[in-house]
Amino acid sequence: MTDIQFHGVIPPVVIPLTEERTLDLEALERSINRMIDAGVDGLFFLGSSGEVAFLTDAQRYHVLQEAVAMVHGRVPVLAGIIDMETLRVVDQAKRATGYGVDGLVATAPFYALGGPKETERHFRAIREHTDLPLFAYDLPACVHTKLDPTMLVRLGTDGVIQGVKDSSGDDVAFRWLCLENEDAGHPLQVFTGHEVVVDGAYMSGADGSVPGLANIDPHSYVEQWRAAQAGDWDKVREIQDYLARLMFVTRVVKATVGFGAGVGAFKTALWQMGVFNTNQMREPVQKLEGEDVEAIRSVLERAGML
Amino acid sequence: MTDIQFHGVIPPVVIPLTEERTLDLEALERSINRMIDAGVDGLFFLGSSGEVAFLTDAQRYHVLQEAVAMVHGRVPVLAGIIDMETLRVVDQAKRATGYGVDGLVATAPFYALGGPKETERHFRAIREHTDLPLFAYDLPACVHTKLDPTMLVRLGTDGVIQGVKDSSGDDVAFRWLCLENEDAGHPLQVFTGHEVVVDGAYMSGADGSVPGLANIDPHSYVEQWRAAQAGDWDKVREIQDYLARLMFVTRVVKATVGFGAGVGAFKTALWQMGVFNTNQMREPVQKLEGEDVEAIRSVLERAGML
Amino acid sequence: MTDIQFHGVIPPVVIPLTEERTLDLEALERSINRMIDAGVDGLFFLGSSGEVAFLTDAQRYHVLQEAVAMVHGRVPVLAGIIDMETLRVVDQAKRATGYGVDGLVATAPFYALGGPKETERHFRAIREHTDLPLFAYDLPACVHTKLDPTMLVRLGTDGVIQGVKDSSGDDVAFRWLCLENEDAGHPLQVFTGHEVVVDGAYMSGADGSVPGLANIDPHSYVEQWRAAQAGDWDKVREIQDYLARLMFVTRVVKATVGFGAGVGAFKTALWQMGVFNTNQMREPVQKLEGEDVEAIRSVLERAGML
Amino acid sequence: MTDIQFHGVIPPVVIPLTEERTLDLEALERSINRMIDAGVDGLFFLGSSGEVAFLTDAQRYHVLQEAVAMVHGRVPVLAGIIDMETLRVVDQAKRATGYGVDGLVATAPFYALGGPKETERHFRAIREHTDLPLFAYDLPACVHTKLDPTMLVRLGTDGVIQGVKDSSGDDVAFRWLCLENEDAGHPLQVFTGHEVVVDGAYMSGADGSVPGLANIDPHSYVEQWRAAQAGDWDKVREIQDYLARLMFVTRVVKATVGFGAGVGAFKTALWQMGVFNTNQMREPVQKLEGEDVEAIRSVLERAGML
Repeated sequence: MTDIQFHGVIPPVVIPLTEERTLDLEALERSINRMIDAGVDGLFFLGSSGEVAFLTDAQRYHVLQEAVAMVHGRVPVLAGIIDMETLRVVDQAKRATGYGVDGLVATAPFYALGGPKETERHFRAIREHTDLPLFAYDLPACVHTKLDPTMLVRLGTDGVIQGVKDSSGDDVAFRWLCLENEDAGHPLQVFTGHEVVVDGAYMSGADGSVPGLANIDPHSYVEQWRAAQAGDWDKVREIQDYLARLMFVTRVVKATVGFGAGVGAFKTALWQMGVFNTNQMREPVQKLEGEDVEAIRSVLERAGML
Repeated sequence: MTDIQFHGVIPPVVIPLTEERTLDLEALERSINRMIDAGVDGLFFLGSSGEVAFLTDAQRYHVLQEAVAMVHGRVPVLAGIIDMETLRVVDQAKRATGYGVDGLVATAPFYALGGPKETERHFRAIREHTDLPLFAYDLPACVHTKLDPTMLVRLGTDGVIQGVKDSSGDDVAFRWLCLENEDAGHPLQVFTGHEVVVDGAYMSGADGSVPGLANIDPHSYVEQWRAAQAGDWDKVREIQDYLARLMFVTRVVKATVGFGAGVGAFKTALWQMGVFNTNQMREPVQKLEGEDVEAIRSVLERAGML
Repeated sequence: MTDIQFHGVIPPVVIPLTEERTLDLEALERSINRMIDAGVDGLFFLGSSGEVAFLTDAQRYHVLQEAVAMVHGRVPVLAGIIDMETLRVVDQAKRATGYGVDGLVATAPFYALGGPKETERHFRAIREHTDLPLFAYDLPACVHTKLDPTMLVRLGTDGVIQGVKDSSGDDVAFRWLCLENEDAGHPLQVFTGHEVVVDGAYMSGADGSVPGLANIDPHSYVEQWRAAQAGDWDKVREIQDYLARLMFVTRVVKATVGFGAGVGAFKTALWQMGVFNTNQMREPVQKLEGEDVEAIRSVLERAGML
Repeated sequence: MTDIQFHGVIPPVVIPLTEERTLDLEALERSINRMIDAGVDGLFFLGSSGEVAFLTDAQRYHVLQEAVAMVHGRVPVLAGIIDMETLRVVDQAKRATGYGVDGLVATAPFYALGGPKETERHFRAIREHTDLPLFAYDLPACVHTKLDPTMLVRLGTDGVIQGVKDSSGDDVAFRWLCLENEDAGHPLQVFTGHEVVVDGAYMSGADGSVPGLANIDPHSYVEQWRAAQAGDWDKVREIQDYLARLMFVTRVVKATVGFGAGVGAFKTALWQMGVFNTNQMREPVQKLEGEDVEAIRSVLERAGML
């Protein structure tokens, strides 16, 4: 296994489309370069924010091929291997590996739920088929299983997983994960996916963050991580307050709910900022229009991002 | 579009494996023939009971290729095109079509949830890419969206879908679906997936059933459907009481929960009855053993199936 | 304990208010007499449809005092003893007993959830404090615990409870409850609370129903029960189709959701039919107005109730 | 209305019983004095931790009468007015007021759910019947409605509520509540109820905390609050790590789940520490025994509390 130590700010990359819903390579490169230039510590492709669920396999690996080439080793690359149950995830792992990524990110099984035994076996079975660093992605909003902190640390101690991306929305369990991980000798690199409360996660001992909002403002997340490393907690929270307000881009949307309001708002913001060429989405989600675009512009203006 | 009218008993086919977890073609043919000989009106492959979530794409289409050849036109074949979001489902639809199936079955989008607009658009977008009859599969336990009866009937009236497989567990909404469908001129063929209360669904006006338990006892479900057609409701409910007790095979399992207890029990019963050669499951689910096997045997014995 | 055998149609009585939100005794007597004259087999006061959660204790026992006097022994009276945890429910049981009711109805504990042990202990503890027949009210939508069929039958066999009112929306579990109850010698009188699918419940072996909609059309529910007793299943389902359409009164409401749309629609229908003098509701729910009233009138007209 | 400004550490008081399940006044006074001597800024009676759902009204007001006398003005007293719907809550408000408390705490309506309109009306209706400071208690785990931050701030601006106790487990919404409250001129005093992540809440701008665990270690929570006031964030998080580990008393319980494991563990710890005379619970919950008591002792020992 590689000995890369993942830490710091690793944005889940939002993927730009053209109006015709093809991959917009020019905008993708601009966005990747913008984040790397801001000092991010890695990039995560094919995550939820990267519309992984909406991409065919062909589209997924097209994204990965282009993205790895664009990053060109400047920062480590993580790739989501998101699929329903173990064999399908292993299939994705094998394919992703061929594209030269530095680590893989897998959720608990979904669609057909089991119990804790099946969840733990799932990660162990994936490990049997890959040598790459493996992150467990705790995302009950999508997969409807919460990963147990004790199980995660056991998987870490056994070398099955190397890290956790926690997007569970359960800050109590996150604290327990950090404490149990510490007590076990820190086998896991623990990241929070909640861009609105990264400061609390850093207080809890997180090794970094995977904030979708960092696509819009990577500088502030990098600055916040460096402040946390320096123990300047007042700065950490001050930046967080600013970023939490910037996240209002997702709260002002009226036309729809769920994914279309979340990633749809990110794309709209990036379009208004000139990073993306349009805010096009993939079926069945429609791009935001009219008043929603105006409302998102207002949030960006108040934040000084326009 | 073909003008096949789907109706009656269409079991979702449970797929036998060898101990080494490869497809057991001999047992599959035995099970398919056993159901067709019992008089079922169709077969549904790559549904939840068919472990669709646990199969790689290669394995899915291997199953479909063999199954279509084994059925050989004796009954219509439905194929699940189960995947996360629209483009992936369309991808599955295109591939399944090549294997000569008679109809497709798609769920609401899952993993990244939206609202009602996205759900409706999803089915319309699938229709734009296939000419085959399309069934909406209402399965909130797996996909976490309940399909609205009014929307389903609208999709039926517009020619987007031709039927519904309702495994929602919501018998009130099912009644409303049947009534609204009737008022609209019966554009939809409506099936229940709840093997324990098929009699109530037939009372509500269902056009048939998709009972996983029919893998174990296809004769009784066929007999029940014929009794319903003849208006012999006492026989319908008497058979249902027997079948509901046979379904205890899934209730006596202690070793695990969820899918492994459900389809795991079906496989164990089929193995004990000599239809399957083993009760092997796919990762991360483990096959049932010891006391669970004994308990399932007891249920089968009480039902006279051994 | 009394040896009343509860069976048949036992409507949960909707309680009329004046515009000033006081108890409308005149309308209450009219509604009670209307249901008894139609041939109902009992009446259930202080259930969810009776706004039990919205009444102070003083108001609850005012209702009970008046209701028992109005019924005057013509049919048995059940009383809800709905409160959070055991001691509070026992308190309600003691008070209700003083008003001369024939049976009590209690839910699982709510607000502070426990596990199966606490739920079972709850009913046993209530039994230690009352000699009246006790019904378990299975209502997970309100109390967020589903009552396990096996536990219910065990409580029945032990003489702790005499019946179940199932409003769980889980028709599979209801079938299992009926079968397990039968196998145990029928210790429980089992009622369904789902007015839209009473026919399926009767097919499953229910001893009766507790349909809120019977406040609006008691005759049809009585006729349906008698048809079920006579084995005339075609009539049972025909009446059910009519009643399911009548239940659209609750589906056409646009102004609000939840309780205000459900019982609010019942009150509005009873007002339009001249049984109630107004459709007033209790705080924080507001009465339905304008288009919602018109839409409810349309449903009643189509059903021939106006 | 009084002009008390609530802030800092306000523990929800756990109530000791005798073995015979009567109120243990001696232990209650010991526990109250212990918390006041440690420097807490207020006490909250009749909250979830105070077994409010398990107490009859008579028992509730017995507790309140004794508690107010014991506190004797040394710190402000908040009282829970926890009941199902508006009129019942108003009834509790009127009674609690008579006992001389300094503020009231009410949840959203529960048992019969409505929509946002009913939730907002509920708090406005309560306000019409009391002059005391009113806190909204955000507790979706018990009442199954999440309070919307924007609505809470609107209620604050309108003088309907003076504060919020957030036990929602939603740290993102908590951040938004704090930000919107700030933008509105800070009409609300905002408290977190999550003892494990108080540091994150203080970073988010909380005015204080309501930690059940402060019954066991009030000194540390007081010290933490003072460190937060002084901007000593390293101390805040260091204390939090210690307290999060102390909270393992609730995680080591094996005999039951839910309330019995949570407050049951608190009572067991207080008993082992000599503050309480037993760990008795109210029906239907049983007190913890054997291995669970040993496991809780171990946690206390590791934390240096024994």
